[in-house]
Amino acid sequence: MSKTIAILTGGGDCPGLNAVIRGVVRAATLERGWRVIGIEDGFDGLVDGPRVRELDLAAVRGILPRGGTIIGTSNRGNPFQYPVMEAGETRLIDVSRRVLDNFRKLGAEALVAVGGDGTLKIADRLNELGLPVVGVPKTIDNDLRGTDVTFGYNTAVGIVTEALDRLHTTAESHQRVMVVEVMGRDAGWIALESGLAGSADVILIPEIPFQIDSVCQAIQRRRERGNKFSIVVVAEGAFPLGGDKVVQKSAVENAGIERLGGIGHFVAREIGRCLTMETRVVVLGHVQRGGSPSPFDRILGSRFGVKAVELIEERGFGKMVALRGRDVVSVAIRDAVGSLNLVDPKGDLIRTAEELGIMTGR
Amino acid sequence: MSKTIAILTGGGDCPGLNAVIRGVVRAATLERGWRVIGIEDGFDGLVDGPRVRELDLAAVRGILPRGGTIIGTSNRGNPFQYPVMEAGETRLIDVSRRVLDNFRKLGAEALVAVGGDGTLKIADRLNELGLPVVGVPKTIDNDLRGTDVTFGYNTAVGIVTEALDRLHTTAESHQRVMVVEVMGRDAGWIALESGLAGSADVILIPEIPFQIDSVCQAIQRRRERGNKFSIVVVAEGAFPLGGDKVVQKSAVENAGIERLGGIGHFVAREIGRCLTMETRVVVLGHVQRGGSPSPFDRILGSRFGVKAVELIEERGFGKMVALRGRDVVSVAIRDAVGSLNLVDPKGDLIRTAEELGIMTGR
Amino acid sequence: MSKTIAILTGGGDCPGLNAVIRGVVRAATLERGWRVIGIEDGFDGLVDGPRVRELDLAAVRGILPRGGTIIGTSNRGNPFQYPVMEAGETRLIDVSRRVLDNFRKLGAEALVAVGGDGTLKIADRLNELGLPVVGVPKTIDNDLRGTDVTFGYNTAVGIVTEALDRLHTTAESHQRVMVVEVMGRDAGWIALESGLAGSADVILIPEIPFQIDSVCQAIQRRRERGNKFSIVVVAEGAFPLGGDKVVQKSAVENAGIERLGGIGHFVAREIGRCLTMETRVVVLGHVQRGGSPSPFDRILGSRFGVKAVELIEERGFGKMVALRGRDVVSVAIRDAVGSLNLVDPKGDLIRTAEELGIMTGR
Amino acid sequence: MSKTIAILTGGGDCPGLNAVIRGVVRAATLERGWRVIGIEDGFDGLVDGPRVRELDLAAVRGILPRGGTIIGTSNRGNPFQYPVMEAGETRLIDVSRRVLDNFRKLGAEALVAVGGDGTLKIADRLNELGLPVVGVPKTIDNDLRGTDVTFGYNTAVGIVTEALDRLHTTAESHQRVMVVEVMGRDAGWIALESGLAGSADVILIPEIPFQIDSVCQAIQRRRERGNKFSIVVVAEGAFPLGGDKVVQKSAVENAGIERLGGIGHFVAREIGRCLTMETRVVVLGHVQRGGSPSPFDRILGSRFGVKAVELIEERGFGKMVALRGRDVVSVAIRDAVGSLNLVDPKGDLIRTAEELGIMTGR
Repeated sequence: MSKTIAILTGGGDCPGLNAVIRGVVRAATLERGWRVIGIEDGFDGLVDGPRVRELDLAAVRGILPRGGTIIGTSNRGNPFQYPVMEAGETRLIDVSRRVLDNFRKLGAEALVAVGGDGTLKIADRLNELGLPVVGVPKTIDNDLRGTDVTFGYNTAVGIVTEALDRLHTTAESHQRVMVVEVMGRDAGWIALESGLAGSADVILIPEIPFQIDSVCQAIQRRRERGNKFSIVVVAEGAFPLGGDKVVQKSAVENAGIERLGGIGHFVAREIGRCLTMETRVVVLGHVQRGGSPSPFDRILGSRFGVKAVELIEERGFGKMVALRGRDVVSVAIRDAVGSLNLVDPKGDLIRTAEELGIMTGR
Repeated sequence: MSKTIAILTGGGDCPGLNAVIRGVVRAATLERGWRVIGIEDGFDGLVDGPRVRELDLAAVRGILPRGGTIIGTSNRGNPFQYPVMEAGETRLIDVSRRVLDNFRKLGAEALVAVGGDGTLKIADRLNELGLPVVGVPKTIDNDLRGTDVTFGYNTAVGIVTEALDRLHTTAESHQRVMVVEVMGRDAGWIALESGLAGSADVILIPEIPFQIDSVCQAIQRRRERGNKFSIVVVAEGAFPLGGDKVVQKSAVENAGIERLGGIGHFVAREIGRCLTMETRVVVLGHVQRGGSPSPFDRILGSRFGVKAVELIEERGFGKMVALRGRDVVSVAIRDAVGSLNLVDPKGDLIRTAEELGIMTGR
Repeated sequence: MSKTIAILTGGGDCPGLNAVIRGVVRAATLERGWRVIGIEDGFDGLVDGPRVRELDLAAVRGILPRGGTIIGTSNRGNPFQYPVMEAGETRLIDVSRRVLDNFRKLGAEALVAVGGDGTLKIADRLNELGLPVVGVPKTIDNDLRGTDVTFGYNTAVGIVTEALDRLHTTAESHQRVMVVEVMGRDAGWIALESGLAGSADVILIPEIPFQIDSVCQAIQRRRERGNKFSIVVVAEGAFPLGGDKVVQKSAVENAGIERLGGIGHFVAREIGRCLTMETRVVVLGHVQRGGSPSPFDRILGSRFGVKAVELIEERGFGKMVALRGRDVVSVAIRDAVGSLNLVDPKGDLIRTAEELGIMTGR
Repeated sequence: MSKTIAILTGGGDCPGLNAVIRGVVRAATLERGWRVIGIEDGFDGLVDGPRVRELDLAAVRGILPRGGTIIGTSNRGNPFQYPVMEAGETRLIDVSRRVLDNFRKLGAEALVAVGGDGTLKIADRLNELGLPVVGVPKTIDNDLRGTDVTFGYNTAVGIVTEALDRLHTTAESHQRVMVVEVMGRDAGWIALESGLAGSADVILIPEIPFQIDSVCQAIQRRRERGNKFSIVVVAEGAFPLGGDKVVQKSAVENAGIERLGGIGHFVAREIGRCLTMETRVVVLGHVQRGGSPSPFDRILGSRFGVKAVELIEERGFGKMVALRGRDVVSVAIRDAVGSLNLVDPKGDLIRTAEELGIMTGR
């Protein structure tokens, strides 16, 4: 009953966070007799405070099917560049020493840091400074390189697919083009997989800068074959082709994307221009990251939680858990963060999409 | 096998339309041996064409759980003011005679017109001109006066409630204010019932012009009681208090609602101003009107379809079917259209909301 | 802060119980400043103990979307005939005096008793003995006479309809007869409404004793029309026609229903005998009464909870809340319990079912 | 437009079959200009007939989200041992020559056979006899060795998990043991993954013969820790430990499993004996294999369909498509069928379950 470990969750809401917390608590408590404390609101709870709560078996009862995180997530963020108000201005200062001191006060032997790229980088730096950390990767965007897949992503794809199913009936009844903007940051995973599952006709992702003329032609060809409606799925990070990336971004800005409210509105407007069809935009927004996790994400989160405890037992600090094939393994945090896991424009999924007749922007 | 009847669906997509079509076809065919033909794309299919398809039992097999309408809905609309392109300009002309002629060509004895306020008004005028019509009311907004409730509404409330459930986990984990803009046109029904079902903290509806200061105070009181997040549901037709309605509208316009993209963005921006809290907007959009109808809407649509056939049998032309208490009855179309079914600001539902501690804008 | 009220939930699990508890707590606390205590495990918590817990605002946070009841329900039951073990035998004794004494110890001014027919009868008797009670009706079976509808029922119909949607694809692909046995005790509501919503071909309910030959003929007619599969929904209380009710029951027993495991198996076996078709039985069981309540049930439960508090304020003891049309009203408990709300074999819903071509057993 | 290929689906209903059909049709038609014909009701449609239908783009429109198979599946089965009625008796005869002849009449160059172990074995034998076949593996049980996972399985796990979520509220409110029997034939995959995702307390699978005493002790330990309810998930193929497998089976029979209706009832009865707790059984049955496929299964089915067309193009007859890691590959049918993909009792998933405190029967 001697050992104590701590856990925190950082970054955006993600279905499966509670599965990790429950996995850590049950694996630590039931088998090993350890004590687990939860740090509130990510690293924020180590900057001020420390603010913590006891995580015993009762505390994690019934949380597996629930979205969100019972210990909250950070709002201010990076302790190496922590925003503080001074004389009416916000300055960024390094409060990492306070974090280390506060962690020491807890009497915990290790920290499980659950989060995305940002949280894991911070965790790795703190590990170098002597705070024993193991990481658990988390993002609905599935853009982390060190693991085959992250929890939360499967749930997000499910929510978007359900929305596409619903929009199909409207698009079909009204002979409309529906443009659906989905999350994913700089990666097209959510757009691609939900588009495949939701019978999209066009899928636009950041990895393949699109030509709006090709998009219009694809929709026109569908009409000529008797399909009077089309569903266009656009990743929030998608952008039109136009030379190198910087130029593309400013081209987008010139084209008024910001003013319009996002790439979804841009695409809808351009389609409305080249074809005389009714066009509607839906920006799915935060519903994509909330709600009860899918079975896949509950299991993956649980496995990650259990593996994190095993990593602590082996003193595998500086490492994070990861899925490789069917196995949960560990990798050095530093090898996993920094570069992104992007859709391969020549890969199997894109080829499948194209063989199914889905237009991918080019 | 002698009698033939026709059916068309007009206006926006609405879960339950296929239930009505199936109900009409099965009640007409199985019991009465009638023939049913479906007019394509609402009144459009009677302006050009006529464009029709045979609706036998096989044609309606398996459509009960499906959203949308298998016979399409109108895109151009009112035959009394029909848009035609002439010399590069759009003019509105009266093509009602063509509609009457085309209907006569079908050899049908009556028409079932399924639609909202607009469609039903047209149906009533055509009935006066000698086309025998019975109406079936349809709107997800539940704003039709002649019936206790319309199909589609229950499904829409379900979709919004599910979205609110999802947003709760995000709002709670991040200590945010989430503003959710929902459909309903000039009525607050969807906002009110989904807000009640989805644990909203503030519900803003057109029937109760809101004071943004009161909204901010309500959120502030919640924080002081330890609730660090809030969910605000805003009907698309809600507007801030400010003298008479015209003034309010222009006040809203001045406030930049149009530029911002809707009342949801306006409310979010104002809350962000009066409180220093992270605020996010979600505009649910067309997902609210698509997808598989709820059991309630499937049953109500089916009952309406069966009753429409009975009405034709009784030669109750100019009437529409309606739900009153537990019974499906008929009312004169003209008594049902024109004025709206709005939320009663002093009614039982609003009082319940307020007793539950929900802020309703005042 | 002076007044204290208590609440208990009795009988079977039912989606919406937590909505009632939350409604009572919020209406009592926020507006009136009362204190609410929850009695654990129904009347059991007043027999031994009293076992109670504080129900403040924090205790009911987040419970609206959750099934079950946070304060538990009774397992032993009726305090007027309470089972106790004495010398290895179970005897039924009257412990109502202990209940009254224990309630007095709580210092509460009134009790909200949420439950079905059994719980409400007990509540009424205790009210006569001087314990001030208001009732809230609850049953997924919708068989309570005093109210138009009870919460839980809508959710149950939704779960069964979803199962029927799933079974359709299997039945259709395999050209099978699927027999689905659903809950409802002596009432056919769940079978009838889910059968209507889920495209059942045959619906068998207790209110219309069925003739198995007619069922077989209906399925045979479907085959001749080219429908190679059929879905049969059977209420758990349905039984074959055969003279008076007693005779029917024993006929059923002779026919081996008990041995087979229920009326669903009986119907499947008989269909397998008269037609040479593959037949499968699904007994949905307890999944019908669990899980997240539908929006309708969340709202109805919330309204009932709020109204119960208003009833206490008006000292309307011996009454229960009820839905009449669109309004929540109150009725004497004694007028509401005892006789059942059954499906009218000549009513609108059955007529609709028959016009849709659904076979209802006769 | 020269080449014609055929497709059939055999064996039990499985979500994702329509995704395969659509994938084959779109990849063959859009890119290659081939013609696709669908053989009705599995191999049955090649024994009599041939019974076929044209599968053009219109025929597969809208089928991706639908369960079942639009071309039906076999009811009689194996052409090498085909049941025929002769003089009132059923005899099994070899009709494979008729299948070959009928296939020849179709003028198709290749056959895509979608099915489980049985269907694939038949396909392989027909391939040896000169009918060019490529296989697509299908089973909700996930017990096929040649592929990492089969479509349908993910949907089945989702349905069971949803049922477990619902049963939790009932079990918790009533302090009951709920025993849930799930599909999976001789493999424990569905039980294991849905049990992990649905917070089961005990998971019993065929790969680990269980000791009922250990099960009772585990439930008893939970009670002593204050958990008054337990959820037990039992695979339909699970059985109690008792020497070698034959002995176990007869032990089970002696114990009356058959008479009781399945292993779920056996387990419930035994728990009721060793502990004095209320116990309920739910046998989920055919709802597990119907309904709309999950996004994962829609994508996997689509990928398999596209890959099958590519295999035909490469003349890879006698092979079947398979998922390996993230890639869709091909393997010899003969290497994939015959032996089963079972849960490894010492593998990562079982270890995770045990670290989470889940009892696995031993």
